[in-house]
Amino acid sequence: MSSGFRFEVLRDDPSGARLGRVDTPHGSFETPAFMPVATLGSVKGVTPRQLEEVGAEIVLANAYHLVQRPGVETVRALGGLHALMGWRGPILTDSGGYQLMSLAELVRVEDEGVHYRSHVDGRAGLLRPEDAVAVQEALGVDIAMSLDECVPSGTPLEGVARAVGRTRDWAARGLAARTRSETALFGIVQGGLDEGLRAESAAGLTALGFDGYAVGGLSVGEPPGDTARVAVATLARLPPARPRYLMGVGTPADLLRFATMGYDMFDCVLPTRNARNGTLFTRDGKLVIRNARYARDPRPVEEGCACYTCGHFSRGAIRHLVLAHEMLGAALATLHNLHFYLRLMREFRAALREGTFPARAAVACGAWA
Amino acid sequence: MSSGFRFEVLRDDPSGARLGRVDTPHGSFETPAFMPVATLGSVKGVTPRQLEEVGAEIVLANAYHLVQRPGVETVRALGGLHALMGWRGPILTDSGGYQLMSLAELVRVEDEGVHYRSHVDGRAGLLRPEDAVAVQEALGVDIAMSLDECVPSGTPLEGVARAVGRTRDWAARGLAARTRSETALFGIVQGGLDEGLRAESAAGLTALGFDGYAVGGLSVGEPPGDTARVAVATLARLPPARPRYLMGVGTPADLLRFATMGYDMFDCVLPTRNARNGTLFTRDGKLVIRNARYARDPRPVEEGCACYTCGHFSRGAIRHLVLAHEMLGAALATLHNLHFYLRLMREFRAALREGTFPARAAVACGAWA
Repeated sequence: MSSGFRFEVLRDDPSGARLGRVDTPHGSFETPAFMPVATLGSVKGVTPRQLEEVGAEIVLANAYHLVQRPGVETVRALGGLHALMGWRGPILTDSGGYQLMSLAELVRVEDEGVHYRSHVDGRAGLLRPEDAVAVQEALGVDIAMSLDECVPSGTPLEGVARAVGRTRDWAARGLAARTRSETALFGIVQGGLDEGLRAESAAGLTALGFDGYAVGGLSVGEPPGDTARVAVATLARLPPARPRYLMGVGTPADLLRFATMGYDMFDCVLPTRNARNGTLFTRDGKLVIRNARYARDPRPVEEGCACYTCGHFSRGAIRHLVLAHEMLGAALATLHNLHFYLRLMREFRAALREGTFPARAAVACGAWA
Repeated sequence: MSSGFRFEVLRDDPSGARLGRVDTPHGSFETPAFMPVATLGSVKGVTPRQLEEVGAEIVLANAYHLVQRPGVETVRALGGLHALMGWRGPILTDSGGYQLMSLAELVRVEDEGVHYRSHVDGRAGLLRPEDAVAVQEALGVDIAMSLDECVPSGTPLEGVARAVGRTRDWAARGLAARTRSETALFGIVQGGLDEGLRAESAAGLTALGFDGYAVGGLSVGEPPGDTARVAVATLARLPPARPRYLMGVGTPADLLRFATMGYDMFDCVLPTRNARNGTLFTRDGKLVIRNARYARDPRPVEEGCACYTCGHFSRGAIRHLVLAHEMLGAALATLHNLHFYLRLMREFRAALREGTFPARAAVACGAWA
């Protein structure tokens, strides 16, 4: 167990959702929590101060990407990932298993680890579960993820089962390789869409004992009904006393659905990536700012929104900046979308605190609920 | 003359430099002043609040670009250029003559105006001096520029002379076309590198009477000695009671040289464009952040610098962000460079106020002086 890491359930809601608090060496955050994605060490276009202002309390970076550039030794020489990013709060890194298997070339997964060629410079690399832990500890992050094997959707059941076994073995090796008590370690449940394999994966990991548990391999293109079915079945196998992190999720509706189920942590590129494409989140649904109807619309993106963007720029102005490829357009859209997501999570938590969940949370989701 | 516009020389320095103050309908700024460039309505990667924080007091946008997109009627529908930009302070627009002649296609300059095809969408357009004034008034800017004819360097003297005459005629027509007293109008002196033509141009414009005078067509690739020679000769022909704006200048050394000469206003893409290429300004000179020597350099870009970038990020971190093409790298570099330029101007003004110019100003320029 990690020395600076602590999770407390502050309130169990009859819905299944819970209000929690995670303490880390870089401060605390309340759950349900959404983690903005800073893959390469920055949330694209946003300064850490702006991140704080939109209400981010923890951010997610990616160990595989940071290993490629600027490299672990460089991050260490610069004072660790917090110093590199200029971010004082908690950081969680994904081990990069997923990114490696989707981005790198000539990937070959063996029991030893993952052989690959870097998508940045073509260098051959081997990422073993021990390396994944060592890398994340060297980055100095607050929460590290075990290396897991992610299989493509459509993989035959034997293949999924083999990945479950390997992920469990890797989790054990990663756990044994820990040297830094300030970095908490989460295990990642795999098992595709098979509830039996999910149960087996969860059992294997919880027997080992992690600071928290993530559910991976969902929200990767499967039908939403399958996501929900597997998410709920997996959750039942995870210890309530530990934080439960549903990776890569999701839309505002997903956040409400899975927070109601009892998941505590989420991350997704949706608010940030969509922002750069000019898709904005509002209570009334998506607003595609490139649409000609907004060209002369003097209203803010969302009436009543307290974010910097809505306080200073019209829809027409943002449309112009986005169409003209001005960096500011992407930055303003990102600020608004993150503010939307993080306000949503604050509403969820307020509702849980005052016992009005999920009604108040659904109102906050507006058209998304 | 404009109703909301006023220029006052607060102190004439023995060096030739002067401390001044310009009042506009959107607030005042002191001179010598540097105007960050917001061609399309944003200083690339920087929010208006960040611009205020680095000390910008007036920004420059470009009427030609804004006519192309989002279009004048759109800007007007959105509440004017200040609303579009989210910027409360003074705005100066260049008429766009220079950009038009360098960017647009099939440009044909006639006495009537400039026929062209848009570089954005290929539409045929005609920009007459009356249009240039009408456009800038419709944008609602504080300071507009007369349409001028910019000739390429190397143009025979007769061509330059013809452009001087045409620029004078256009200036008169623009002046006569004014309808909005809140928008001040500056004339632009042309005449290439010929002091006689410069004198003729200045005489023609000052006889007409403008709120201020700009010197165009310099710092476009000519030898520095020619720039200085023509700049000083032209300045002598301009009324001391009006602000004098040297367009497109320059490096920190240029700012010191031409402020010492008595110029009051400057604009240049150097700090912002260089930032996006990873070239940073420091007291010790240029810092090319892509250089491998900075990979593990934990120091700020400039020791002792009070900007947000230097307060929160190492050279190594910025290098990583720039090399990884993260928007934040460009934004942080831009913030620092603008802070450097605007701090320099504050130092110039402080030195003028306390009578230590140019010594204190030269110290502030460091290796650039």
